[in-house]
This record gives sequence, C-alpha cells and structure tokens, in this order.
Amino acid sequence: MSEIEKRIESLGLVLPAPPSPAGNYLPWRRSGNTLYLAGAICMEAGKMTHTGKAGAAHSVESARAAARVCVLNALAAAKAAAGDLGNITQVLLVNGYVNAVEGFADSPAVLNGASDLLVEIFGDRGRHARAAVAVAGLPKDSTVEIQMVLEVAD
Amino acid sequence: MSEIEKRIESLGLVLPAPPSPAGNYLPWRRSGNTLYLAGAICMEAGKMTHTGKAGAAHSVESARAAARVCVLNALAAAKAAAGDLGNITQVLLVNGYVNAVEGFADSPAVLNGASDLLVEIFGDRGRHARAAVAVAGLPKDSTVEIQMVLEVAD
Amino acid sequence: MSEIEKRIESLGLVLPAPPSPAGNYLPWRRSGNTLYLAGAICMEAGKMTHTGKAGAAHSVESARAAARVCVLNALAAAKAAAGDLGNITQVLLVNGYVNAVEGFADSPAVLNGASDLLVEIFGDRGRHARAAVAVAGLPKDSTVEIQMVLEVAD
Repeated sequence: MSEIEKRIESLGLVLPAPPSPAGNYLPWRRSGNTLYLAGAICMEAGKMTHTGKAGAAHSVESARAAARVCVLNALAAAKAAAGDLGNITQVLLVNGYVNAVEGFADSPAVLNGASDLLVEIFGDRGRHARAAVAVAGLPKDSTVEIQMVLEVAD
Repeated sequence: MSEIEKRIESLGLVLPAPPSPAGNYLPWRRSGNTLYLAGAICMEAGKMTHTGKAGAAHSVESARAAARVCVLNALAAAKAAAGDLGNITQVLLVNGYVNAVEGFADSPAVLNGASDLLVEIFGDRGRHARAAVAVAGLPKDSTVEIQMVLEVAD
Repeated sequence: MSEIEKRIESLGLVLPAPPSPAGNYLPWRRSGNTLYLAGAICMEAGKMTHTGKAGAAHSVESARAAARVCVLNALAAAKAAAGDLGNITQVLLVNGYVNAVEGFADSPAVLNGASDLLVEIFGDRGRHARAAVAVAGLPKDSTVEIQMVLEVAD
C-alpha cells in the first residue's frame, strides 16, 4: 500500500467500492498518462448523502461536506484505473458543479471541500486547476458533482 | 470505408456535412493523439431539431433523441479531423449539458441517448467517462449540447 | 518578448499580474504539452468588473466585454506557466460559462468576445474548439467564466 493510501486510512477515510458502470459509460478512461474520470456524485453505499440545492437545502458548510463525498467516489475510480493511488502523479483539472439556487456565487467555497481533501490526501500532487460553476440540476438531485482529469504514472 | 462507418450506414444513420466554423472557433482541435471537439447542438441541415427545456417542452425520451442528434454532429467533426471514424481509438470524455427546468435530476437518462449511440457505433471503443449536468440555457435554445474528447490513431 | 506579447501591447492590452492561488487550487497545471488553466472570472486588480446576469444586468454586448476580461486573466496564468505566450502552440479548448437568465440562448455571441480576442492575439494558433453554456451562477457573481486547455511547446 502506497503512502497515499496509508494517508487516506490515517485520515479516517475509506474509499468506497469502485463504481459499477450504470449504462454505456465508464468510471474512467485512460489515454497515455491522462486519466479522465466520470462525474462523481454524493453517493455512499448506493444511497445519496446530499441532495437538493446549495443556498436552500444546504448551507455552504453542508455543501462542502457533499463535495468531499464526491472526491472519495472519484478516487475509488482512480484507484481502479491506476492500481494504487500512489501512481497518480498530478491532479490536473477539477470541474466542480454545484446544484444551487439562481445566482449562487459561493461555488468556490463549496469546492474548497474537494480541493482541500485532494491536498490532504495527495499533498502538492493534489493541487489542481479548477473551474467552479453553479448549475440548474445534477444527476439524482446530487448537491455537488466533481469531474476530474488526472495524470498517472507509466 | 471503415467498419465503423459501415456500421453507421447499417444503423440507417447519416453523418451530416462537417460543421462550418461559425466565428473564430473551430469544430475540433488536435494535440498529439487527443482530439477536442466543439460542443455540438441539436441542429440538422441548418435547422434546430430540438429546442426548449427537458422537463417542460421535452420529456426524457424526447430529450434522449435530442442527444443522438448532437452525437451525429460531433462525429461529423471527428470524421473531418480523423479522416475516417475508424481512426478513433477511444471516446475519452463526454460532457453532456441538458437545457432543463430548475432541479432537473434526470440528465443521466437523457445522456444515455448519446452514450448508447456511441457504443452502437464504436463498440467498446465508444465507452467513455461522462459528466451529465442540467443548465440554465444552451446555444440557440438547443435542448442538449455534447462536448467530447476523443483519442485518435497516429 | 515574443511577437505574441508584442501584439498584446500593440492592441493596447495589458496582462494582469499572474493570479495568486485562492486556496488549495492553482492557476494552472501542466502535463506533457498540455496546459490546464483554472476558470478565469471578470476580475481586474482585485475588483470584479462584471457581475450579475447576461439577459438582465448585462446585454450581450456588455457580457462580451466581460468575456474579454476573463481571457486576459487566463492568459496571465498561461504566461506564468509557459514563460512567454509565444510558447503557446495551440488553444485547444475553451469552456465558456455565462451567468445568465433562465433559457438564455445567446451564450455563443457572448463567448465570441473571448474567441475573437484569442485570435487577435494568437492568430490561427488561437482558434479553438469551444463549448458555450448558460449557468445558474458563477464565482463572486462573475458574469462570465472561461476555462481553457492549451498546448505548450516543449
């Protein structure tokens, strides 16, 4: 087990089972050293943990916790792709979508939940370019969706 | 003509003419083996086939048909880039945007229209990572927009 | 100074200071020849230049100016990453998000502000694949957000 996966354990976090394809799409696709992950939502053991809108059903703080759940799901896919998360050499891009009320301006604060967790886990390798956007709706009414592009070792 | 393009024919589908640049952007850009396609909307022979919102003007079933139109437009650009769609080695990422009513939670069912068609055409090469999002509006009031990243042979 | 940076000067434009990380994310990440930029918003010298929605607070023309501000911020990050903008060999993908009223259909016209400026600066290298989307909200209520993927020389 790599240092990265030990760190996840020492943070008291558990990666979920790798997601199973829900249709004709996949949890990840790899091209060269680039790993494209599918959008991950707020699901745990088959149940949604956070649904409804930031700015209404959820405070920024609660939506930030929702973002952490998405990251763990995304990393379960990354581990399935890379064998061990120690093989992830860079988190390149995080596209963060927040299911939010009209005019919601605090998507960066919500997405910090994802960014902070990535850096807790990966250290400097976990720092990433990021785009935060508030949207009209997300799959299964998830409060947050995170789609990532990673770099993986040969 | 590759097996892939014969399959398109045998499915009774016809690729539209390659899109012409509507301004200072392009239907595609290639870097190494990665092909970035522009967002494709629900247009056929210069006319919109599906406008207005999923959850109001369109049922999920109707929006799913809209997603198929987008895929054919995207593949016309991919063919122009790759010469023949048989040179597409992987569909890497599908970003699917659904023009939908507030709180729309069924974007995955809509996007399955796109994913299923990609797999009908490309087989396993057509399976992809995907992010589905419902948004406030799309170009020309299109019901769906699909933006893809593909892998192309040398 | 490269021809590209001289052109920026001759257009009467000034690149802002490179953005400083506002949290655990970065203005850019590079993998091989691919440069992923963070989403850039309508900020100048620490103040927002355009907030509120296209279709309400802003006409298409005004939102188009907002898109130009985003591009300059994104290019400041690109310059920090690439040393000189003359090292940018292709603009690959522009993801353009417009903070807009429900059903806003003119995101392409808004994003032309970004696309035209990229071509003014980079010439043919600046032409790109693009996806335009209208969304419920953006960071700090920015009117436009631009996220780009660039190709950079070795």
